[in-house]
Amino acid sequence: MKLTHANTDVLNTLTSLRGEADKAYQELKDRNLSLDLTRGKPSVEQLDLASDLLSLPGVNYTTSDGVDTRNYGGGDGIMDIRALWAEALGVDPALLIAGDASSLNIMFDLVSWSHTFGNNDSERPWSAEEKVRWICPVPGYDRHHTITETFGYEMVTVPMTEQGPDLDAVRELVKDPSVKGMWTVPVFSNPTGWTVSREVAEGLAAMETAAPDFRVVWDNAYAVHTLTDEFPENIDIVAVAAEQGNPNRFWAMSSTSKITFAGAGVAFLNSSEENLDWYRGIASARGIGPNKVNQLAHARYFGSAEGVRAVMRKHAGILAPKFTAVTGILERRLGGLGIADWTTPSGGYFISVDVVDGTAARVVELAKSAGIALTGAGAPFPYKDDPDNRVLRLAPSMPPIEEVEVAMDGVATCILLATIEAAEAAGE
Amino acid sequence: MKLTHANTDVLNTLTSLRGEADKAYQELKDRNLSLDLTRGKPSVEQLDLASDLLSLPGVNYTTSDGVDTRNYGGGDGIMDIRALWAEALGVDPALLIAGDASSLNIMFDLVSWSHTFGNNDSERPWSAEEKVRWICPVPGYDRHHTITETFGYEMVTVPMTEQGPDLDAVRELVKDPSVKGMWTVPVFSNPTGWTVSREVAEGLAAMETAAPDFRVVWDNAYAVHTLTDEFPENIDIVAVAAEQGNPNRFWAMSSTSKITFAGAGVAFLNSSEENLDWYRGIASARGIGPNKVNQLAHARYFGSAEGVRAVMRKHAGILAPKFTAVTGILERRLGGLGIADWTTPSGGYFISVDVVDGTAARVVELAKSAGIALTGAGAPFPYKDDPDNRVLRLAPSMPPIEEVEVAMDGVATCILLATIEAAEAAGE
Repeated sequence: MKLTHANTDVLNTLTSLRGEADKAYQELKDRNLSLDLTRGKPSVEQLDLASDLLSLPGVNYTTSDGVDTRNYGGGDGIMDIRALWAEALGVDPALLIAGDASSLNIMFDLVSWSHTFGNNDSERPWSAEEKVRWICPVPGYDRHHTITETFGYEMVTVPMTEQGPDLDAVRELVKDPSVKGMWTVPVFSNPTGWTVSREVAEGLAAMETAAPDFRVVWDNAYAVHTLTDEFPENIDIVAVAAEQGNPNRFWAMSSTSKITFAGAGVAFLNSSEENLDWYRGIASARGIGPNKVNQLAHARYFGSAEGVRAVMRKHAGILAPKFTAVTGILERRLGGLGIADWTTPSGGYFISVDVVDGTAARVVELAKSAGIALTGAGAPFPYKDDPDNRVLRLAPSMPPIEEVEVAMDGVATCILLATIEAAEAAGE
Repeated sequence: MKLTHANTDVLNTLTSLRGEADKAYQELKDRNLSLDLTRGKPSVEQLDLASDLLSLPGVNYTTSDGVDTRNYGGGDGIMDIRALWAEALGVDPALLIAGDASSLNIMFDLVSWSHTFGNNDSERPWSAEEKVRWICPVPGYDRHHTITETFGYEMVTVPMTEQGPDLDAVRELVKDPSVKGMWTVPVFSNPTGWTVSREVAEGLAAMETAAPDFRVVWDNAYAVHTLTDEFPENIDIVAVAAEQGNPNRFWAMSSTSKITFAGAGVAFLNSSEENLDWYRGIASARGIGPNKVNQLAHARYFGSAEGVRAVMRKHAGILAPKFTAVTGILERRLGGLGIADWTTPSGGYFISVDVVDGTAARVVELAKSAGIALTGAGAPFPYKDDPDNRVLRLAPSMPPIEEVEVAMDGVATCILLATIEAAEAAGE
């Protein structure tokens, strides 16, 4: 947002608050805090929900269809977990592969293998293209950007809206045959918490792309991660793509990382039969199959798709108060001043705050000096470059709620002070 | 081996045995067997050794140095398993990364990332080279060959000897700057069971290579997989390479796949600091870290390096009789005839049999018709092409010993019959 959006009264008010803000900031520093709102990690309390998993699968190592999970083989993963997860997400288990713990691993490999070999719709490997461009809805997920940056792709941004990536902007970009793909987090997106609407999903599925091998990475990391009593609509994006005549459009991932254990869960790839066959062809050169014992442990732990939802309600019970604390403090301290906008997600792991243009990095700096670690300004943008120096990503999941409250009150002070500094500089 | 190696008496004897061999083969077929000697997989009895692991790590999820294994992070893996495994293998834990289950995954990624980005000693990515050639000691491991074939590298063979890859042949090949790497299984090699001597190891470490980014993949899959009371000498190949002035020469892997659960163990990468830093740089774009819960479960299961050895003695107790059965039957049925040579490994998972040139595929075919599945002739060679049609790979670990005995007696009959056919054809 622009400072000029704040009216003259607000500007005057801000300037008059300088002394008060300085005092509040000095008091904040004097507390010698050491708090951290940077990490989208589950808290110990959340991890404790899955304690039973630490002793699973237990003595019975056989799947319900008779597979000994301890031995080699089974590149698609075991059907027990595939069927359960497919039901939880509302997708076709035959088009769902269960892998090791990390969906990020799968995304990297899909890009890497398209780069080296081309994918099943490629005329040539992406590495043989003069240039590869990649659409990044912003603000977005930093680790997505890291992958495409690693492969030297030119990242082009489109605005993320409350309905999903700006469809007109995307449609314009995909007329360029060098545009090979697009990142998206469709549900409770990182960091805004926004969810792609069915209309936008259908638009992405239906649109014509100049590149025949264009892919949308549909990173459904927060598919069931509600903060309320309600679960989001699950769009079976692979089915939607088939209906719209572009069956190979999406590579869809999900995982249990923020449901059971972060880094020790089960990750999934859902896509068309052709896409999966291409993936299997290379995956089977890379290895003999995923960790089926861990998959069976997860199937036993959840029991059913309803078991997944039951666990998620418990997570919501822990997380929702932290999110409420964040938005409540922002509202109380900054509401009505016209100097900050923030999202109020009903799921996911992050809250995104728009501060006055040019001040985000200063807020992070002020917070750091006061012992409050915030994600670096720019982190949700390709090349870590927020062109407006505007967006803050807040991650309240990890610290105890008392710390979230103290930290957020401090952050509000830092936003206020940074804005006043900017107002003064503008007035000079 | 060549049929002419068999003396005239043997040739006459063979021809005179035709009727008897035909009868034996017919009887074999009449048994309607369904036996399988193709798979280098542990048996159920072996997998049962690790039953305790199915309920580990148990309620205590914290490493001895205080890491909560359930959350994200720790790209190098946990120190508990790294220290234990480093001691078991006699390597430096600081140069040992613990990953997910599959060392094959690590090998594929090392080649893939050298291909796309170049490794830390590359002048350019391997994909930018006009041609990449790769040394394959033969007979060797088919899944190694699949990786280099996937990347389109030209595989050139050197003989595997009882002391390791033929060093003179290797030294000659590495004068070519397009030769970028070499596969090797240093201990109880697949499929011969032979082990690289210290002298050959030092030679590989010391030799000059035209390519500055040449790498030996030191796939120590059977490092502790003895069939006797004794464990093989563990060569700390990364230290040897440093001593010889080529610290980055080796990428060394190992895993617990055939110690605990195949496909659900822990895999390791041991290399120089520079090599590991390069690997970490890309691995950290690919993901957030390995499954630390499974690593902790393994550390608890083994308890110590001596715990690893104790488990391996139990494996030897199960496997050794099967190996003895194989070599015993070969000796009893074919010994002294000069028509087959076989290895008598003191460790590992395979036995390699040289039959008369031109007959290996026929032996596999005859066995198949009699209900005995053997690994395809040619499998241990690049492009699955055994130029002499000579080598059979036998894998006796998976079936119960009674089945191994029946199958091997049948295999001996097939070898005999195929040789007689060849002798008759030669006499025509």
